[in-house]
Amino acid sequence: MTTEQPRYEVSPWELRWSGLDIEALKRTESSFALSNGHIGLRGAFEEGEPRGLPGTYLNGFFERRPLPYGEAGYGYPEDGQTVVNVTDGKIIRLLVEDEPLDMRYGSAPFHERVLDFRSGTLRRRTEWISPTGRQVRIESERLVSFTQRAVAAIHYEVEPLDGDLQVVLQSDLLANEPIERVTMDPRVAAVLEAPLVADFASAEGYRAVLAHHTRRSGLRMAAAMDHEFDVRDPMWTEVQAEEDLARLTVAVQVRMGQRLRMTKYIAYGWSSQRSTPALRAQVDAALAGARQTGWQGLLNEQRGYLDDFWRSADVELDGDAELQQALRFGLFHVLQAGARGETRAIPAKGLTGPGYDGHAFWDTESFVLPVLTYTVPEAVSNALQWRHSTLDKARTRAAQLGQAGAAFPWRTINGEECSGYWPAGTAAFHVGADVADAVARYLSATGDEQFERLYGLELLVETARLWMSLGHHDVHAGFRIDGVTGPDEYSAIADNNVYTNLMAQRNLREAADSCERHPDIAQTLGVDEEETSRWRDAAHRMVVPYDTELQVHPQSEQFTNHAVWDFANTPRETYPLLLNYAYFDLYRKQVVKQADLVLAMHVRGDAFTAEQKARNFHYYEQLTVRDSSLSAATQAVLAAECGHLELAYDYLAEAALADLHDLHRNTHNGLHIASLAGAWIATVAGFGGMRDHGGEITFAPRLPPELTSISFRMRFKGRQIGVRIASKEATYHLLEGEEINTSHHGEQITLHAGERLTMPIPRTPTHPSPRQPPGREPAHRRPTAPT
Amino acid sequence: MTTEQPRYEVSPWELRWSGLDIEALKRTESSFALSNGHIGLRGAFEEGEPRGLPGTYLNGFFERRPLPYGEAGYGYPEDGQTVVNVTDGKIIRLLVEDEPLDMRYGSAPFHERVLDFRSGTLRRRTEWISPTGRQVRIESERLVSFTQRAVAAIHYEVEPLDGDLQVVLQSDLLANEPIERVTMDPRVAAVLEAPLVADFASAEGYRAVLAHHTRRSGLRMAAAMDHEFDVRDPMWTEVQAEEDLARLTVAVQVRMGQRLRMTKYIAYGWSSQRSTPALRAQVDAALAGARQTGWQGLLNEQRGYLDDFWRSADVELDGDAELQQALRFGLFHVLQAGARGETRAIPAKGLTGPGYDGHAFWDTESFVLPVLTYTVPEAVSNALQWRHSTLDKARTRAAQLGQAGAAFPWRTINGEECSGYWPAGTAAFHVGADVADAVARYLSATGDEQFERLYGLELLVETARLWMSLGHHDVHAGFRIDGVTGPDEYSAIADNNVYTNLMAQRNLREAADSCERHPDIAQTLGVDEEETSRWRDAAHRMVVPYDTELQVHPQSEQFTNHAVWDFANTPRETYPLLLNYAYFDLYRKQVVKQADLVLAMHVRGDAFTAEQKARNFHYYEQLTVRDSSLSAATQAVLAAECGHLELAYDYLAEAALADLHDLHRNTHNGLHIASLAGAWIATVAGFGGMRDHGGEITFAPRLPPELTSISFRMRFKGRQIGVRIASKEATYHLLEGEEINTSHHGEQITLHAGERLTMPIPRTPTHPSPRQPPGREPAHRRPTAPT
Repeated sequence: MTTEQPRYEVSPWELRWSGLDIEALKRTESSFALSNGHIGLRGAFEEGEPRGLPGTYLNGFFERRPLPYGEAGYGYPEDGQTVVNVTDGKIIRLLVEDEPLDMRYGSAPFHERVLDFRSGTLRRRTEWISPTGRQVRIESERLVSFTQRAVAAIHYEVEPLDGDLQVVLQSDLLANEPIERVTMDPRVAAVLEAPLVADFASAEGYRAVLAHHTRRSGLRMAAAMDHEFDVRDPMWTEVQAEEDLARLTVAVQVRMGQRLRMTKYIAYGWSSQRSTPALRAQVDAALAGARQTGWQGLLNEQRGYLDDFWRSADVELDGDAELQQALRFGLFHVLQAGARGETRAIPAKGLTGPGYDGHAFWDTESFVLPVLTYTVPEAVSNALQWRHSTLDKARTRAAQLGQAGAAFPWRTINGEECSGYWPAGTAAFHVGADVADAVARYLSATGDEQFERLYGLELLVETARLWMSLGHHDVHAGFRIDGVTGPDEYSAIADNNVYTNLMAQRNLREAADSCERHPDIAQTLGVDEEETSRWRDAAHRMVVPYDTELQVHPQSEQFTNHAVWDFANTPRETYPLLLNYAYFDLYRKQVVKQADLVLAMHVRGDAFTAEQKARNFHYYEQLTVRDSSLSAATQAVLAAECGHLELAYDYLAEAALADLHDLHRNTHNGLHIASLAGAWIATVAGFGGMRDHGGEITFAPRLPPELTSISFRMRFKGRQIGVRIASKEATYHLLEGEEINTSHHGEQITLHAGERLTMPIPRTPTHPSPRQPPGREPAHRRPTAPT
Repeated sequence: MTTEQPRYEVSPWELRWSGLDIEALKRTESSFALSNGHIGLRGAFEEGEPRGLPGTYLNGFFERRPLPYGEAGYGYPEDGQTVVNVTDGKIIRLLVEDEPLDMRYGSAPFHERVLDFRSGTLRRRTEWISPTGRQVRIESERLVSFTQRAVAAIHYEVEPLDGDLQVVLQSDLLANEPIERVTMDPRVAAVLEAPLVADFASAEGYRAVLAHHTRRSGLRMAAAMDHEFDVRDPMWTEVQAEEDLARLTVAVQVRMGQRLRMTKYIAYGWSSQRSTPALRAQVDAALAGARQTGWQGLLNEQRGYLDDFWRSADVELDGDAELQQALRFGLFHVLQAGARGETRAIPAKGLTGPGYDGHAFWDTESFVLPVLTYTVPEAVSNALQWRHSTLDKARTRAAQLGQAGAAFPWRTINGEECSGYWPAGTAAFHVGADVADAVARYLSATGDEQFERLYGLELLVETARLWMSLGHHDVHAGFRIDGVTGPDEYSAIADNNVYTNLMAQRNLREAADSCERHPDIAQTLGVDEEETSRWRDAAHRMVVPYDTELQVHPQSEQFTNHAVWDFANTPRETYPLLLNYAYFDLYRKQVVKQADLVLAMHVRGDAFTAEQKARNFHYYEQLTVRDSSLSAATQAVLAAECGHLELAYDYLAEAALADLHDLHRNTHNGLHIASLAGAWIATVAGFGGMRDHGGEITFAPRLPPELTSISFRMRFKGRQIGVRIASKEATYHLLEGEEINTSHHGEQITLHAGERLTMPIPRTPTHPSPRQPPGREPAHRRPTAPT
């Protein structure tokens, strides 16, 4: 239909796709998704079709579905939870004389979509010639408001290009859209047909509202729309509402040279508690606020919010324009996923698609929150308050499993365990330590004492208690944690996973420290000195296995005694291995899906010597196949630390481009938010060498040879710090706040307000280049200029 | 309704239950089940109701059902298989004037059922007073013929006790009987509603036939009945057949002092290949044979078959009448399960109930076949031919799992894996070595060279190849088998399970030996000398972990480093633990469901010193909770070997009484055939000290203090050997065959034809008494006299 290049164009502050590629719609709808963490709209066309996978999501709004088992077992969750495609408010159908706008018919001399990272909007411009030969231009712009959490809006313009034209617009609220099942991939969300039951429908003037509830989970929601028009000629309008459809129809004659301009305001609300009338009132009120602000006001608020964000979070990267774009794309989506979730989870896909059933995993705490901690710390407080709000469920789960403390779920929407496969679910208890680590990181980065007293301390205490009950002292008084699953999903149910044990160690110490800081709160939780000293003792005696022959840390006990996976005879098309090999065989061999020991060397880098890191990294590179999107970023961090700067650069690119290049071939189900966050981590912790062990931050910057410079900004203890890395020197700039001590490659430095401090970068240590499994080397990155 | 004692009466050669206990029907139907290994009839009343759980089974006849997964994975079986309750031919309804015989109504001055181990029949005698006051006596006797494999028969007599009586009999074939779901226990078979689809029905004279097929598995079956009458007075009869019901109705006036005698002949056939007309012909022919033999002829054949069996298999036990009865009950049911299966599996429940979906497991090879090897070796040849017939499926499964050789299923009916939980299914690869061990045992006990050449060698080779691909040589050249599950189901996915490794070691050696005996066959299987020497090398270097500090063998590597289960705080009502604790917690702690290392010390006793056995037995006794019926017998064997004779006696009783005392509270779903076989093993290998390592048999008899003597007979290499154990001496008697060398407590002896050789029994070694987990001690056995 078009000869334009159907791919994203490289540009520093926006993501643009020119031309139409229907096959690519599914994945571009994910990339072009808008969200504020509460409402998510996939980037579908207003006219509804052609479409990839329609999706409108409300964070936390889910339906239950039974979790079946061929052979049931004690403690298996009976119910799963699946994110629901709620009432679609994006739909604006256009009739050009007799022809509905449908880009599969007629022709389009011009078509482009642009996601603008600074305006926070998705713009579309289309010139279309209908099958009967009439030519129109459509321009739309939409946003999901960061400032008005319940509100989305679409500005829509139609202009005839070849003479006066009768235009009919149908602006819908549509519930229970049919969705086709596209694949049997278990990672794809279970599709639920018609999950919404109608409770209420009304329409009057330009306004309509639909209220529904979910059949099994019993959650209630309302969606409402209102409209403003700017048109010279008289309009005929009609509004109607039935169970699953509300529609405003507008017919108008638009003269050549003039435009029909419409603003559609959409509001959503949901609740497990409030009644349908209360929800109706809520969305009506949100619409009133939006109307009062107006389209231009919403645009201004949105840009202001984003200006603030970029001021404290932007990363600049000179020498690779595509990577620059990808980093900003990633930060923008991390912000969208986490900005206004407010005591709801940040799902693995954000609100960009139905993948993983809309569940949140440990990647939120381990990949997304580290980024937000140093850029939008308020969002971290909210996300951890969500975890705190699920503590009762986690305590109940721990008790069901015969354990003390709280056992957070492997995957969930509302806090209940939804994993149907316990060896890679419930047994991955490290999620508790990951939550505790996120709490500790947030506390040390913000000093938010109120958060610590209200939420943080209890999270630390209950996770610490779980470790005490999961572990035991062996005959040599070592503290062992047996039979658990670490981050690497190609191993399971192993003893003394190094990552788990080191994270549990930190968890126990942070809990004890926090109790000592706030003995009054500790007392209300029943913590006494004997308990904290048991925590410290267990932490002190934590078993960390080491293979003295190979001189590396086994990922878990016995790991290095296992057979190495036969990579040479593994056909390249059999990756990801889990789709072609049985778990039993993966589990008992040395093959690593995703960084595990290497992740331990990042987040608990204080527990390893530089020599150990170098040897371990070299060893695990040969075994790591990166069948998970959670791996490249961590490998980038350690590659950089070990002096493999080109390799680090390749891994950074892999993490950053996971979705723009659809590297895992499942971007259509939603973006890999943790991988996008990982790109920031790869940049700041990798090339910036930023570490935050023990409540301090330190730097050890190095520039990969492909780039001219990297600059990033971060917030820490009320300061804003800028770092610019050039090839031979790094410059620190305290942009805001009082002087602060940090270190540069191990050398103590003090940053003073407003001053720049430039430090030479020491020579990069050289180690032999590590090898990856054949065929699993990262793509070698060549810097890409703007399109 | 009756005041008689509703329990089994103790009697040496029969199992009798007097009176009626409707609650107990479910389990007594299992105990009173008749089977020849091909047809199985649960011991339900002829009149159909009251009933426990109706059941008529054809070995190998199953329906498929989907196996669901909350989260699917590569290599998970998609289909399960469930034994089908086929057309019920047992039903004979009786109308006493207007009242149907139903023992829930009226009263029964006399009622008893007797399973006779020598006649091989189930007899019933009932005197019943109908609600309207008419009194009749019913006597029935039924058999499932050992000699005519497709035939069952019921002899039924009605006698009026209070004057002339009009009697109506309805003799049915009834398909798709409704069955209630009684429990959510996952061990209970999935109930399939109306699994049979009607293909054909006909009736003429006293004969009728029904043919059906299963909806999803597409297996075809036919059931037919014919009748003979012995009655003085004229009968009115009618026969009819519809889709799921064929019925012969007989009305007759029976005079006081006379009897209506009817013999019902029933024939069954099924096939996955043959057509419905062919199956109809097959059952008609079987009926013709049965009619020609006649009821008395069938009785005579049955008794003759059993006389032969008891002559070579009986175990006599002086001093405990109930245990004597239980041992014969067990042997009778082991024979029923294995006698005429002929190239079909021997299911865990035999054909006595729907438990475990009718699947066969490793217990067949490891518990049932060892008994049959020394008593009915022909049945072992048949059972192993069934395994051989599934080799293609097992090779396909191995290939699917990325392995060489053959991977036999954990649970199956037709040879395909049906386990829906791989950590305790597919990962339990020891089943392959168990099959190989059964082959090797059969070969050394029979010298059946034809079997070896046609079936045995290939089974040994393909199982050996699986071990070579599952294991690998570590850096010290030890041969490791990582990530597998041993017999103990409270551990899973562990490295170097001692039982598995030692059994694999024997498997590799037996395969190499067999190939050297038959190089021509080996060549056709592609085995060369290099391959057999690799097998021998791997066997030689097999890793057998040993805990040098505790001086015991860990069940698997790391096992003894794990926390010991908190038995003291485990409430007694939480056993079996798997119903109240999560697998993850059981797996990572020292708690043993069933003998694992202890089983290794029995079947691979040659790999342990006496001191190791004593220490290991003591250690594992403290950890073993016997939540499986496969444990007590093995513990009895090792208890006896280690000199704990009273404990061995307690365990023998537990194994033998598993079903008569309903110790696992699930006898209603069928008998625990392996536990019943285990009672023989506990007697012969336990108190007889019989071992069969390295192709020889040896003895080390000792009598428990509670008994006066134990005598048993067994077949070996064409001999029949009798052993009588008294308290101070043992007497060996070569009943049949040429002289043979064996040993008595390590002293070489030679048995000459017809001679008795009496040897003194050495003093029992004394070790401190082992402890079991609190509350899990075996019941202390007090010998029980006849009732």
